[in-house]
Amino acid sequence: MNEGENMRKEENKREGNRDKFEKKKPEREENNADPDSQFVASLAEYLGLPEEKLDHLFEKKYLARNRGEHEDLLRFDKEVSHIERGTVVYEKDGAFEMVPGFPKIRRAMVLYPTLKEQFSQTRTLAVEEKMNGYNVRVAKIKGEVLAITRSGYICPYTTERAKVKLNLKFFDDHPELVLYGEMVGPDNPYVPKAIYEIESLEFFIFDVREKTTGKPLSVARRRELLENYGFLQVRLFGEFPLETAPEEIKKIILNLGKIEHEGVVIKDPEMHLPPVKYTSSQSNCSDLRHAFLFYYETGRDYMLSRIVREGFQTVEWEENEEAFEKRCMQLGESILVPLREAIWEVKEKRRLFDEVRIRVSDPETARRFEEYLKRLGVDAVFEEPQPVGDEFLIEIKKMNKSTHDKTEAIWKGELW
Amino acid sequence: MNEGENMRKEENKREGNRDKFEKKKPEREENNADPDSQFVASLAEYLGLPEEKLDHLFEKKYLARNRGEHEDLLRFDKEVSHIERGTVVYEKDGAFEMVPGFPKIRRAMVLYPTLKEQFSQTRTLAVEEKMNGYNVRVAKIKGEVLAITRSGYICPYTTERAKVKLNLKFFDDHPELVLYGEMVGPDNPYVPKAIYEIESLEFFIFDVREKTTGKPLSVARRRELLENYGFLQVRLFGEFPLETAPEEIKKIILNLGKIEHEGVVIKDPEMHLPPVKYTSSQSNCSDLRHAFLFYYETGRDYMLSRIVREGFQTVEWEENEEAFEKRCMQLGESILVPLREAIWEVKEKRRLFDEVRIRVSDPETARRFEEYLKRLGVDAVFEEPQPVGDEFLIEIKKMNKSTHDKTEAIWKGELW
Repeated sequence: MNEGENMRKEENKREGNRDKFEKKKPEREENNADPDSQFVASLAEYLGLPEEKLDHLFEKKYLARNRGEHEDLLRFDKEVSHIERGTVVYEKDGAFEMVPGFPKIRRAMVLYPTLKEQFSQTRTLAVEEKMNGYNVRVAKIKGEVLAITRSGYICPYTTERAKVKLNLKFFDDHPELVLYGEMVGPDNPYVPKAIYEIESLEFFIFDVREKTTGKPLSVARRRELLENYGFLQVRLFGEFPLETAPEEIKKIILNLGKIEHEGVVIKDPEMHLPPVKYTSSQSNCSDLRHAFLFYYETGRDYMLSRIVREGFQTVEWEENEEAFEKRCMQLGESILVPLREAIWEVKEKRRLFDEVRIRVSDPETARRFEEYLKRLGVDAVFEEPQPVGDEFLIEIKKMNKSTHDKTEAIWKGELW
Repeated sequence: MNEGENMRKEENKREGNRDKFEKKKPEREENNADPDSQFVASLAEYLGLPEEKLDHLFEKKYLARNRGEHEDLLRFDKEVSHIERGTVVYEKDGAFEMVPGFPKIRRAMVLYPTLKEQFSQTRTLAVEEKMNGYNVRVAKIKGEVLAITRSGYICPYTTERAKVKLNLKFFDDHPELVLYGEMVGPDNPYVPKAIYEIESLEFFIFDVREKTTGKPLSVARRRELLENYGFLQVRLFGEFPLETAPEEIKKIILNLGKIEHEGVVIKDPEMHLPPVKYTSSQSNCSDLRHAFLFYYETGRDYMLSRIVREGFQTVEWEENEEAFEKRCMQLGESILVPLREAIWEVKEKRRLFDEVRIRVSDPETARRFEEYLKRLGVDAVFEEPQPVGDEFLIEIKKMNKSTHDKTEAIWKGELW
């Protein structure tokens, strides 16, 4: 399996189908020469894994060097015992250092009794907004500030944006810390959203963790620290007693839904317990609207889970028939409107693609981003950069070849 | 993988999730002793397969003896080169004989140009009703009339019903022929339907084929032959010119939809070309209503394919906004109504099950059917037989443990 495919499968499964690039034959640069045994031995010791295990991981490419610009960085393409998928590890000054992957945030299907069960060891819950963009970690790695995607790749576009947007003094003061956040806004090659009154792209931080150990700062400490550097942070709705939290969160979710926002992440203020997420019906339907435009390549589980959430929410909230009818109509439309559009487009002999755009300071960043996508096996067409102020806008068409080809074949008389 | 699981997976995938029994730990009777090499050699010759291939099939249990009552019959659990899955093969008087499996009937997503493409070598098309029940083959095997399921098992209930319902003289006159048909009606342990004005269970024949070769009779010859024996047959809507068939079939489908019937199978009258099926929107929605009651065990592809059909039909038929809105609402309700019901039932601490019933002449048949299901790893609770005239009705609860347990866990605070 190539890296692009891995990325796509992962995105469909975990992040929610956010990176719906189409795979084509990827450039394979087979420069994953076998690492020498001395290196393997010391890395194994650092990671706390047996050497044979590490050999196996290299062999299977579950642990692999980045290709292209950052071959000195190793990437976990799979969760391995205590190490999250997407974790990046590298040698620096003769020692190892690690940027841990995103810890999985599991989902509450119902607020009560889930919060009570999952947070039995804390008395209050901090509730922060879950924004709809793409996950990025930013850290100083071997002297350079880099933006790492969920899968552990170094994205040249996101790296440029991070350097432009962030107060870089933070990384000099705290070289041991990693910023975990969401890149949000319309100039977004993965999940463009115009719902946040953001002109281009901004980085909203929701977590700060130590390199190597992955130990998180408490909510209060994190918010204070980030404020000192003038960083954008996800909104904090407040800290609620465990007992009343389900009712409070329901109110927050209903209000977020009205403005099409995604949902919340519910946290132990001390960050000793793993957070839990919960989303609005509008966000489920919005995901479905996008999923069914590209019905043949979206993960089936991705679709089903969003549908099932609608069922639990209506039962948990004991909706009356009027609200329920409205929910049925919204669900039906969220599925059939995009499906009709995709099928119609292909019938009318138009190509199916996702249109996104990026905004760069240096056109060279766009070129490097195009290279990067090509390495990942992504089929995307970049338009010419258009100057906007002192920056450049570039339109990108991400081709949805699989859905297009299947739909076209049906219109030509093929069977399902 | 055990046979019950295989059966369930197959049903979900192909037949449309019709046999939603719940698997539990199956009784494994490991009496699949290695067949002797002389037997393998002669069977390989009969099937036209290399001996090593056959050894491999036996080893993987892709070719396996029935357990329980019919250990002399071998069953293909997998499609193997030209041999359909569900094919049954056996020795009779020192020679081999074979009852071929159901040939796959592929689906037209749009009528035009599919029919033109798929049937370019014929000038007219016979259109017959596709009924909603379960597929059965009936043939005389080693002197006994037996009913074979799609997967190649000998179902004791269906066998009893076939013997009661059919004019058995047919099998004496035509020992070389196999009846392919649909068991339809409310006394149906797999797909109970009350839409056909059938009091109990009837066998509607749609195909007659030769043993071993699988060669089908032409539509006209089949219908004439079956009529001579007073057999029930699926309805023939007529024979239409290829050019006007899409328009005619659309009319038929709209009428079938109004009475909640499933759809049609479109055939080359000479049966030289493989048939093609096409179904009504109401049938898609009815499948979805059942699928979402047991959302956690229904095949994801099964759900998706039914949803996608709705998209193609609305575009092909160029529906106006009013019809489209209605379709959206129907789709949304077909999903959320059963989902709400399942979630609600579990919240109220009731078990999720599918309630079906059978009607037998001899209570011993019910007992054998219960044994048969147990061998397949199915979790079903049989009530006491109730006399009705000279027959007996038995209620059966098929337990949907997987959906039940998942839903219950969520209500107890587990995460998705």
